[in-house]
Amino acid sequence: MHVVVTGAAGMIGRKLTARLVKDGGLNGKPIDKFTLTDVVAAEKPAGFGGKVDIVTGDMAAPGAAEKLIAERPDVIFHLAGVVSGEAEIDFDKGYHVNLDGTRALLEAIRHAEGYHPKFIFTSSIAVYGAPFPHAIPDDFHLTPLTSYGTQKAISELLLADYNRRGFLDGVGIRLPTICVRPGKPNKAASGFFSGIIREPLAGHEAILPVADTVRHTHASPRAAVGFLLHAATLTREQLGPRINLAMPGVCCTVAEQIDSLTRIAGPQVAARIKRQPDELIMRIVSGWSERIDARRAAELGFKAEKNFDEIVKAHIEDELGGKIA
Amino acid sequence: MHVVVTGAAGMIGRKLTARLVKDGGLNGKPIDKFTLTDVVAAEKPAGFGGKVDIVTGDMAAPGAAEKLIAERPDVIFHLAGVVSGEAEIDFDKGYHVNLDGTRALLEAIRHAEGYHPKFIFTSSIAVYGAPFPHAIPDDFHLTPLTSYGTQKAISELLLADYNRRGFLDGVGIRLPTICVRPGKPNKAASGFFSGIIREPLAGHEAILPVADTVRHTHASPRAAVGFLLHAATLTREQLGPRINLAMPGVCCTVAEQIDSLTRIAGPQVAARIKRQPDELIMRIVSGWSERIDARRAAELGFKAEKNFDEIVKAHIEDELGGKIA
Repeated sequence: MHVVVTGAAGMIGRKLTARLVKDGGLNGKPIDKFTLTDVVAAEKPAGFGGKVDIVTGDMAAPGAAEKLIAERPDVIFHLAGVVSGEAEIDFDKGYHVNLDGTRALLEAIRHAEGYHPKFIFTSSIAVYGAPFPHAIPDDFHLTPLTSYGTQKAISELLLADYNRRGFLDGVGIRLPTICVRPGKPNKAASGFFSGIIREPLAGHEAILPVADTVRHTHASPRAAVGFLLHAATLTREQLGPRINLAMPGVCCTVAEQIDSLTRIAGPQVAARIKRQPDELIMRIVSGWSERIDARRAAELGFKAEKNFDEIVKAHIEDELGGKIA
Repeated sequence: MHVVVTGAAGMIGRKLTARLVKDGGLNGKPIDKFTLTDVVAAEKPAGFGGKVDIVTGDMAAPGAAEKLIAERPDVIFHLAGVVSGEAEIDFDKGYHVNLDGTRALLEAIRHAEGYHPKFIFTSSIAVYGAPFPHAIPDDFHLTPLTSYGTQKAISELLLADYNRRGFLDGVGIRLPTICVRPGKPNKAASGFFSGIIREPLAGHEAILPVADTVRHTHASPRAAVGFLLHAATLTREQLGPRINLAMPGVCCTVAEQIDSLTRIAGPQVAARIKRQPDELIMRIVSGWSERIDARRAAELGFKAEKNFDEIVKAHIEDELGGKIA
């Protein structure tokens, strides 16, 4: 089996590839080749005996998508994309990468006669826009309030039409906020949700810019990889025509996040969180969805963590080798 | 005021232009110029003393959209599009005209510095896909089951993002089935909804391929033109960020349509309807929305007919000069 991962140099892309290498296969079939593509060169996955093609470049460039699928890979995980903040600042780049890049890939597949791969697309809860009901149901409309969310919502619609037409077997998964995101603190408005767990666990101070009462839905990087793998197992028959699915997550308040950290790592670690209210971040976060009632995903067998304690433990195991600073 | 109508040679485009000529202006400002564009040449509107540019061609062709807005028209009614059946048969043409054409027009506007016209886009209830709740609420998700519906839903998302960014003042209106559609019978699966009224009134036989109990939502061509004009009066403040709106209509069964025809034109006219069940049409129609709860549109002042009698009377007045054959 030949697996393509776009956005392979990104955090989820690397974790997905590593997990596929560890599993040795997908849907019961051994993987003998990876094609890993991104704007920067992805690393060769450690411990993989098969062939690996590393491809860099712009998917929307003429011929790029055709080349990527020339060997007719069996499964494509399409994770590539410009992130929310960048797509908002650079209108052209966001549409070029997130819409034109996705469409180029879908078009290349459509034009490859007799070819219909499994295509797993990562969408985002950015497809939703406030005001929201108490919990967002599966049939809630998509009224994104960012260009990024718009590009994701459009890609979902394209994917569903290409799936309906039989050009591919598609599934789109709307990831909740990924927490705990590893790596350095960044300037994303959502960064603190991870920062207040990751930084104290690493012995550093973290800033909390919003109130304890802020509620949000989270899934660990490990759960996100699990969603991608589970999506690849679903059949057309199981999915029906509505192939774009909100993913489950752990819905909790910031106070509950801090309670988990305290329970698992102790009050001296939780004391590294400094409250420093930031009006701008508070305003941005107030427009985000709080609760997502991901009923269809749950029925289809997608599984997130059961509580925030599990998310903190997954981070300690996967990123800190089980150790707390 | 300079008004552009795309799709100006089509039925709604012609009626909209005629109405604007009759009104003499829009939003209290006189119209001194029309640009009427379509793939075939639109007719010059009768009785208009101002300037009229007739433009033919493909909006998605390089430079075409830029040229169309070069004089910075104040209001653009974007009605152009390949119809549902054609977009389903010709995948490339549908995406080219309905998506790329619309995007080219939006892009031309974005690149015209300091320009932000009023932009009214005709979407369709084809953005919805079965299964449906009892009535479709304003916050119901868009899961189109045709490429046409997909292209309309994508155009709505683009319009909302371009509106949010301040490139234009946009509003998208989802038209219900237009009934009574004038002209010759056509092969559209929905054709009978109009046919069973139009043909008997003109002295001809009409085929009814579905059961009397089939329920659907209709608005007259006159009401559709009214929606377009009313949309042009709405401000950003009135609309908020959710600028794509389901339009109201008359929800009734085929039996109620026939009752109206009988009341208005007599049983001898209604007797011209021949029942000839067609399994294929019955199956297609069973996947269509029945009831649309267009609450926001009603609150914003959009008005359809109150009952099907008014739709039949509008047809007799507007198309038959008040006479029944």
